[in-house]
Amino acid sequence: MNEFDVIERFFRKNSLFTNSNKIFKNKTFIGIGDDASVFSPPNGYDLVVSSDLLIEGTHFKKDHTPESIGHKVLAVNLSDIAAMGAEPLCFTLSVNMQAINELWLSKFCEGIFELANEASCKLVGGDLTRSKENSPIFFGVTVIGIIPNGKALKRGSMQFNDDIWVSGSLGDPNVALKNNLYSKKLIKPQPRLALGKKLLNIANSAIDISDGLSSDLLHLLEESSKNLKRKVIATIDFLSIASCLGPHLLSCYLKNQLSLNECCSLAVASGDEYELCFSARTEFRKTIKALSVELNLPLTIIGKVISEKESEKLFSFHEKNIIWIDTKGLPVSPENYPSDGFSHF
Amino acid sequence: MNEFDVIERFFRKNSLFTNSNKIFKNKTFIGIGDDASVFSPPNGYDLVVSSDLLIEGTHFKKDHTPESIGHKVLAVNLSDIAAMGAEPLCFTLSVNMQAINELWLSKFCEGIFELANEASCKLVGGDLTRSKENSPIFFGVTVIGIIPNGKALKRGSMQFNDDIWVSGSLGDPNVALKNNLYSKKLIKPQPRLALGKKLLNIANSAIDISDGLSSDLLHLLEESSKNLKRKVIATIDFLSIASCLGPHLLSCYLKNQLSLNECCSLAVASGDEYELCFSARTEFRKTIKALSVELNLPLTIIGKVISEKESEKLFSFHEKNIIWIDTKGLPVSPENYPSDGFSHF
Repeated sequence: MNEFDVIERFFRKNSLFTNSNKIFKNKTFIGIGDDASVFSPPNGYDLVVSSDLLIEGTHFKKDHTPESIGHKVLAVNLSDIAAMGAEPLCFTLSVNMQAINELWLSKFCEGIFELANEASCKLVGGDLTRSKENSPIFFGVTVIGIIPNGKALKRGSMQFNDDIWVSGSLGDPNVALKNNLYSKKLIKPQPRLALGKKLLNIANSAIDISDGLSSDLLHLLEESSKNLKRKVIATIDFLSIASCLGPHLLSCYLKNQLSLNECCSLAVASGDEYELCFSARTEFRKTIKALSVELNLPLTIIGKVISEKESEKLFSFHEKNIIWIDTKGLPVSPENYPSDGFSHF
Repeated sequence: MNEFDVIERFFRKNSLFTNSNKIFKNKTFIGIGDDASVFSPPNGYDLVVSSDLLIEGTHFKKDHTPESIGHKVLAVNLSDIAAMGAEPLCFTLSVNMQAINELWLSKFCEGIFELANEASCKLVGGDLTRSKENSPIFFGVTVIGIIPNGKALKRGSMQFNDDIWVSGSLGDPNVALKNNLYSKKLIKPQPRLALGKKLLNIANSAIDISDGLSSDLLHLLEESSKNLKRKVIATIDFLSIASCLGPHLLSCYLKNQLSLNECCSLAVASGDEYELCFSARTEFRKTIKALSVELNLPLTIIGKVISEKESEKLFSFHEKNIIWIDTKGLPVSPENYPSDGFSHF
């Protein structure tokens, strides 16, 4: 089986049967099998583009099932699309492997195309390579989404007095990785596409939690500070975080292995969550609570956006962008701050 | 220097000063630094998307200069855009490396941004990772281009009696790789963007030569056969190929190290050429010759598209899609066929 056979059998054929936007039914659409794919983007929409690399040993483990690897490779990119409030349109997939394992590939395709189909995201191209030097399996994915013109949820649009919200639960990927436990988020993360789309006219800003709330929230604050030309600060309540703890972390607390503050500290530094953290004006509380019911997804207010002036009134230290409030209502002192989340370097 | 510092210093800053389409000057444009990039595609155009992986040891060597690696990483993707007749709009760049080498990165950026600037192709996003396991440096690139609606040059649109053309010269990357010689095509390949765009209302079909003419031309023939529902065959003249030999191959012939037929056989199997192979109706010969002068780029007729019926009249064997005619005007017998060009598997 040469590379063209693999592309035809595993990727082009599967791509033909994916739910997709109607633009891919136009005669002018060119998919897999040409130098590049060609399509007419729908009028009235902006394009949203996100690219990621996923590497064996770093983003997934050798012993993960091929279905779950296929799922995750697409899911983490869809999560970025969700964080913009966009809907997925299509994606390219580049694969590097040392040998063709047909069984592995067919299971991998099951995982990726099941999610592609759910998300109506069509595979339109990519690349298949083998590295000469020994190297892990890795994937390059680019997802293209669409969003009504000018409506994208930016990182830098937080407003003072906004509530800060988080979807779902936090912390399990962290605990699961350390203790070799099962976590659905590590195996089959769910991009919050439905939520992202619903937040379009509600949220001021949004980000997906891939490195950890502590570092991802910092991006919102830093970008918003640039835009508002004033320091933007968040206060985050551990008591609210405590109500979003994933089951593994909760059980650590219930078994007295960790204090509630320690659990919260781990939860906010946990990466691979693929939840959305977003800010919205306080008058949207009811709407967002109703959304939580509609989507059957917990949405929790975990804190507030404040100015430097307010922070000076309330707290004795001001050098940080995030002020963590422990379960007793006291600010966590800087030396006990949660770690900064994941960074490759 | 953490990953965010690297992205800011080497990639976001450089991306700000690249020539680009005016859509990236809109207020709604979101570039590097958000979950995804957002832009409004120009009206009346289709989007053209191409993704590639480039891996140390396979697509470039460790001892290549970082400038040339930067150049090549973008150039090979632009070559796919050129083969569709499109013009580049923007790209995403994902980088995996084991350590941050600031000098290397700044030279790499010189190479990639010089070409991005020439091609008015804006960097809009990407990813930066470090693999835990030891692995080569690799890059994932996705280029997005635009083309007037419905005008893309497809692989599958060859017509019977079309001339088959090739741009530039062939063969040097093959010889250079084997003999450790310098070849500009290996170090600084030139995507044929100006040619591709000019061919829009002239050529019937086009492909870029990345694996070798022998295998890339086969894609044109196979896709065109599907579309015409009849077998599409090409006759290729070695005498015409002889007039496109790169200087290394030509010198092998002049030094009597190889026969002319052997040189042609190597030239048509040589990958990494990034020339365009295209087909056009015979009445366009004058126009294309004028184009060659205008672009200061050799454009050579190397053969013809024929039907199975014609092939049966002319040749005694019919199982192949390409009939090579040697320098004496005789068909090359199947056992002496040029090799099939590069395949990863």
